[in-house]
Amino acid sequence: MRHEKQLAEYAGMIETALDRLLPLEGRKQDSVMEAMRYSVLGGGKRLRGAFVLEFCRISGGEPVTALPYACALEMVHAYSLIHDDLPCMDNDDMRRGKPSCHRAFGEATALLAGDGLLNRAFEVAVSREAADSLPAETVLRLIRELSGAAGVFGMIGGQCMDLAYDGRVPDLATLDDLIALKTGALIRVACRMGCVAGGADETRIAAADTFGACLGRAFQIRDDMLDVEGDAAVLGKATHADERQGKTTYPALIGMDACRREVNRLTGEAVAALEGFDEREFLTELAWSLANRLK
Amino acid sequence: MRHEKQLAEYAGMIETALDRLLPLEGRKQDSVMEAMRYSVLGGGKRLRGAFVLEFCRISGGEPVTALPYACALEMVHAYSLIHDDLPCMDNDDMRRGKPSCHRAFGEATALLAGDGLLNRAFEVAVSREAADSLPAETVLRLIRELSGAAGVFGMIGGQCMDLAYDGRVPDLATLDDLIALKTGALIRVACRMGCVAGGADETRIAAADTFGACLGRAFQIRDDMLDVEGDAAVLGKATHADERQGKTTYPALIGMDACRREVNRLTGEAVAALEGFDEREFLTELAWSLANRLK
Repeated sequence: MRHEKQLAEYAGMIETALDRLLPLEGRKQDSVMEAMRYSVLGGGKRLRGAFVLEFCRISGGEPVTALPYACALEMVHAYSLIHDDLPCMDNDDMRRGKPSCHRAFGEATALLAGDGLLNRAFEVAVSREAADSLPAETVLRLIRELSGAAGVFGMIGGQCMDLAYDGRVPDLATLDDLIALKTGALIRVACRMGCVAGGADETRIAAADTFGACLGRAFQIRDDMLDVEGDAAVLGKATHADERQGKTTYPALIGMDACRREVNRLTGEAVAALEGFDEREFLTELAWSLANRLK
Repeated sequence: MRHEKQLAEYAGMIETALDRLLPLEGRKQDSVMEAMRYSVLGGGKRLRGAFVLEFCRISGGEPVTALPYACALEMVHAYSLIHDDLPCMDNDDMRRGKPSCHRAFGEATALLAGDGLLNRAFEVAVSREAADSLPAETVLRLIRELSGAAGVFGMIGGQCMDLAYDGRVPDLATLDDLIALKTGALIRVACRMGCVAGGADETRIAAADTFGACLGRAFQIRDDMLDVEGDAAVLGKATHADERQGKTTYPALIGMDACRREVNRLTGEAVAALEGFDEREFLTELAWSLANRLK
C-alpha cells in the first residue's frame, strides 16, 4: 500500500533528525543522553510526527519546515512513556519489545531522561534552526499548541485522571474524557501543529483537530481490542494485561462488537473531516490501516 | 536593610502571579495541580525570580513585563527539587521544613507534578499574557535561554553528573563543573532573562551572566558551609547531611577557611560585574547578604 511507503519515508526523516538533535558529546552527562536516545530512537510508528509532516504538506508547506516540531512531539511522546513505565506509575518492564528505560538504565537516569526529553522538545521547538524558517508568531503559536496539549490541562491531566481512578473509571463518558486527554491530546495537536506550520487557516486547523480527536479515540479503542484479541508475538508484548490489572477498557464497558463498530464509525468521521483538504489519500489510507491494525 | 524590603516585594509579586497561573478547577486532575501548588507556592527565597525582575528593571524595563518569566523559572526550580527529592534520587523526606512532595502526595503524583511544572513553565512563557507585551523575537530568545539552561546541557546535565559520581566527585575542578550546571545554570539564566526582557544589549547580558555565575558558585559554597556550621533550627533541616552521605563538598575539598575566602572573593567579583548598570544597590546588598546568610 502506498501509505506505508510514505509513512516509512516520514519515519526516516524523523529518525535522522532525532539522531542529530540528541548528540552524544563524550562527557559525564552522556548517560542521560544515551537513555534519551534509547527511548526515542529506533522504535514506534512515528504517527504523531507523521501527522505533523503530512498536515504541513497538505496545508501547502514544506514538510521539512515542520520537521523540528515533529521531532519535538516525538520527544514529548517518548518522555511520557518513560515516566509512565516507572515503578511508581505502571511499573512496566518492557516497551516496544525491549526493556523499558528504567530497566535498562536505572530509575534515576530514566527519570532524568524523561525530564531531558520534555525539556529538549522545547529547546528544539525554539532553536534557531527551527524558528528561522518560520515567522516568529508562528513559532510562538506552535510552542503554545505543544505546551498546552502536553501539560496539566492536556496529556498530564489525563495521566493524573488515570492515577486518580487507578485504572477503574466508572463509566464510558469518563473513559472518553480520560482518553481524550491522555492519548488524544498529543494526536490532535500533531495534526494542528502540522497545519500551523504549513500556514493553514483556522477552518482547516479545526478540521485537522476533528480528524485527530476521532482518530485518537479510535486508536485507543483498537489498542484495547488488541489486548483482548491480539497475538502477543505480533504485538511484541503480553496480551490480556488490562484484564489482569482490572483496568476499565472499551471492550469491558461496551463489548468487542460495539468496539469494532465504534472504531469504524470514528475512522469514517475522521476521514470525513478532511474534506477541506485537496490531498487526503495518505491520511485516509493510514486512518483505515490503523483501524484494522494487528499491532 | 533596604534589600530585604525589595526582595519581599518581588517575592510577593511572584507568589501572587504563581497562585493565579496554577488554578484549581474542581476536576479530577486537581490532585496533580494541588501537588504543583504545594511545591511552588509559599516557600523559598524566590532568588531566581527576583533576579529576573531586578535585571529587567535595571535594564530599563518594567519588572511586571518579566513577571511571567520569573514565575516560569521558579516553576522549573520547583520541579527540579520535586524530582531530586524522589526516592530514586536523593530520597529526601523534608523540603523547606515540610514533607517533600512525594511524602505529601505519593510518588506518582509527585512525578507528574514535576512534569507538570516543567511543562507549565513553557506554557506560561509562551502565553498570550506573557508574549503580547514583548516583541515575538524577544519571547523566542527568552524561551531559548530558559530551555537551554534547564536542559541536558544545563541543569539536567548537572543532575546527571551528580548521579554519575554518586556525590563523590574526584576534585575541585569537577565539583566546579557540576555546580556550574546543577545550581549555576538557573541562577545565571535568571539574570540573563531579566536583561533580555528589559531590552539590555549583549554587553550587559554578558555582565549579568558573570554576576550570576559568580553568585551561583558562592551560593553553593555557602550552602555547603551551612551544612557544617549552620544551626539546624534556623536552617529548618538537619545539618551534617553531606558528611553522613559521604558527599564531596567545598569544605571537604578545600576546608572552611578557604570556603569563607572564596565566597567573599566570588561575591566581590559578582558585584564588580555590575559596573555597567547604573542601579546596583539592591543586587549588591543582596549578594553580600547571601554570602553571610545563616539559612
